[in-house]
Amino acid sequence: MSDIERFVVHDRERLLAELMQWCAIPSVGTDPAHAADMQRSAQWLLALMSDAGLDAQILQMPGGHPAVYGAWLGAGTDAPTVLLYGHHDVQPADVLDAWESAPFAPEIRGDHLYARGASDDKGQVHLQLAAVRHLLATDGRLPVNLKVLIEGEEEAGSTTIVAMLRAHAELLACDVILVSDTGMYAADLPSLVVSMRGLMYFELSVRTCPTDLHSGAFGGAVPNAAGVLTGLLAKLVDAKSGRIAIPGWYDDVRPMDARERRSYASLHFDTDGFMRLLGLSQLCGERGYGTLERVGSRPSVDINGIWSGYTGPGSKTIIPGRADAKLSFRLVAHQDPNRLRPLFEQWVEREVAPGAQATVHYHSGVRPADTPLDYIGNRAVARAMERAWGRPPLFAREGGSGPERSLSDELGAPCVYFGVMLPDDHIHAPNEHLHLPSYFRGICAAAYVLEELGATGMAAALRQ
Amino acid sequence: MSDIERFVVHDRERLLAELMQWCAIPSVGTDPAHAADMQRSAQWLLALMSDAGLDAQILQMPGGHPAVYGAWLGAGTDAPTVLLYGHHDVQPADVLDAWESAPFAPEIRGDHLYARGASDDKGQVHLQLAAVRHLLATDGRLPVNLKVLIEGEEEAGSTTIVAMLRAHAELLACDVILVSDTGMYAADLPSLVVSMRGLMYFELSVRTCPTDLHSGAFGGAVPNAAGVLTGLLAKLVDAKSGRIAIPGWYDDVRPMDARERRSYASLHFDTDGFMRLLGLSQLCGERGYGTLERVGSRPSVDINGIWSGYTGPGSKTIIPGRADAKLSFRLVAHQDPNRLRPLFEQWVEREVAPGAQATVHYHSGVRPADTPLDYIGNRAVARAMERAWGRPPLFAREGGSGPERSLSDELGAPCVYFGVMLPDDHIHAPNEHLHLPSYFRGICAAAYVLEELGATGMAAALRQ
Repeated sequence: MSDIERFVVHDRERLLAELMQWCAIPSVGTDPAHAADMQRSAQWLLALMSDAGLDAQILQMPGGHPAVYGAWLGAGTDAPTVLLYGHHDVQPADVLDAWESAPFAPEIRGDHLYARGASDDKGQVHLQLAAVRHLLATDGRLPVNLKVLIEGEEEAGSTTIVAMLRAHAELLACDVILVSDTGMYAADLPSLVVSMRGLMYFELSVRTCPTDLHSGAFGGAVPNAAGVLTGLLAKLVDAKSGRIAIPGWYDDVRPMDARERRSYASLHFDTDGFMRLLGLSQLCGERGYGTLERVGSRPSVDINGIWSGYTGPGSKTIIPGRADAKLSFRLVAHQDPNRLRPLFEQWVEREVAPGAQATVHYHSGVRPADTPLDYIGNRAVARAMERAWGRPPLFAREGGSGPERSLSDELGAPCVYFGVMLPDDHIHAPNEHLHLPSYFRGICAAAYVLEELGATGMAAALRQ
Repeated sequence: MSDIERFVVHDRERLLAELMQWCAIPSVGTDPAHAADMQRSAQWLLALMSDAGLDAQILQMPGGHPAVYGAWLGAGTDAPTVLLYGHHDVQPADVLDAWESAPFAPEIRGDHLYARGASDDKGQVHLQLAAVRHLLATDGRLPVNLKVLIEGEEEAGSTTIVAMLRAHAELLACDVILVSDTGMYAADLPSLVVSMRGLMYFELSVRTCPTDLHSGAFGGAVPNAAGVLTGLLAKLVDAKSGRIAIPGWYDDVRPMDARERRSYASLHFDTDGFMRLLGLSQLCGERGYGTLERVGSRPSVDINGIWSGYTGPGSKTIIPGRADAKLSFRLVAHQDPNRLRPLFEQWVEREVAPGAQATVHYHSGVRPADTPLDYIGNRAVARAMERAWGRPPLFAREGGSGPERSLSDELGAPCVYFGVMLPDDHIHAPNEHLHLPSYFRGICAAAYVLEELGATGMAAALRQ
């Protein structure tokens, strides 16, 4: 048993108590009612970083939530500088009555810690800082120069992060960014994320009439806003190919090469198990691609919400004059929201039925992030994971979207990803939980990641 | 000036005060919170009928709201027996803040009385009873044997009316039914309804997954319930023909003959004015038919409501596992809900995308009602309207649905229609109002209708 493995066994109770204390703070960044909790969470994290031996401070941009920054820069110029990224804000907890234990009353049941944020992302941040604290306490040093940036706006689209990266460019300068906000295929199937999809979020509103009309008096002769909206949305994906039907949408998509497809195939993805896990009776998507390929390497679109007309109990015979939908597109390299936004807006204008006015509101956009498979930082993380799990990790492409591309672009450094979230952690859903064996193994792996990134010659290689 | 015309001018203030008193009672039958108001409204009406000289009583079936029945049967067996039908329940008043004056605080502004129920249907009932009261007060008799049935469940689908008609078959027996719950094309364009469309109301629910899923982690690979539902609904109407795409749906539709089409054409329907009135930029519907034909003589379907996923402020990146819609079909003669219901259910089962479970809940059904144009009762009402408006009325087919077909079938008597609602009365909407000149002229016309129906020889002709 290595020293870090002994530490994890020995300090188990203390680590869990600490993480549960943090998870009890409802740091819901999107809800103004929790603004004070965001500050409490940041102060709690500031104390943890200081305790770990980092030189810590709060960074906060106007209109934004507090981020916590910490640094230990004693490894010298021959060692690389690593920026660890994560977030301390969490998703809203609704639907409340679907939780078995209260979302902000952390509870351990079996192998899992149940709490909002346990997996996304407090558990992931805590395991990294636990490793850092242990290394500094026992060795008095780290194998790398470490900077830590834990932001407070990830679940709200990281609205002020670009401004923060620019305002503190020197403070945050680094050779590589270590993202601690992703997952693995399964607890016994270590995997390493190499890309994240981008995101475009829209609200689409259709109006046919200033008021609702009586469906008896007018039905069959006047446009129905709900009918126009459903007709429009039904044209968004080509039924035959499963592809987004907007002209030009795939122009900049990086095609998958043979190596990438082989790599996906080598996963021997368990379709039946996946469907059972989610309670699905059938999968679907773009023709010619497998499930992991669709989620990781192909564009997608989803209706996130739709509403129109009468939605209460019983019947009301109206023709709605207005209908609304929320829509999100996931983007893959090298798609660019700035190029795609007008394509969607023009498509809506062209395709909406006559007699209706459609309004598109662009909510936010995130560019996709993509680190080359053979980047030396990826190989270092892979070695670290192999040490912790006893088998080399598979590569993975994450379907979700975060600020990674902005981090990369602003700091001029590639992202590598290490995280232990599992597909059934229920992140963003009721009963979010953290798989504790993966968390503890993650502490060991986090220490190994720093060792591998700090190995002789890595600084020069990373800086090439 | 005829005697009834003098009465109307003389009693104007008293009539309005009386109607306003009734409209102040919030007899919302669909809302259990207003159950006591339904009783108050019925008692108010009972008193009015008694005051008019009718022998009045409350009729109420188990689980139903009170109806009010009244009779004057002194015209002898040589005179026909007329059953006057209307309702005293009203639509819910929401959206409340869209009302300029409170829905149950009746207010006269200009030529209109504003209140929920002013036009649909308290004003229509009141004008009939005002005529009856005047005739009995001045002549001591009516030209016909009159029975009056004012029900309390019309806005809720007349749920117990068939049971009531059967339980009181003898009490309600008649030669002709005079429906007082319809309208005219315009205040200066008297028209006479000869049919009403039927109705089928469904709730349609689609499930793809027991929970919502993260649109980043799963988007592009799993079915989206909102996507499945919008795709299904978009197939319901054939885009090219504007016809309902369910096989067999038109099998029993009575085709319009040349006379009916000529009659529609003779109306010289003002398309631009209609669009301006409703605030529409374009009309639509089944190819090959005009607006009035579509509304009066052709089947239609409308989405009355749709909801799925996240509908609050801001963004939430979920794939909804469930989506719901409310749908209503309007039927024309000789379509039958019992035959059409399985056609729709089978269509849903066949057309819903794989990976989704669709559930159809049949809410209620109303058969279409259709009185032949040349029915002698129609000709009598037409003569009465010509006397009141100075020009012969046009015929009209009403797009809405009521219990008229059940009344006809159960009592074995045809329906004739007389009413003065106007297209812009805002029935079922905020700021419902009654056009007072039409209301007062309607009192005169109501008296003439009884005279025409009671003319010599009518009893025998109606009984043929």
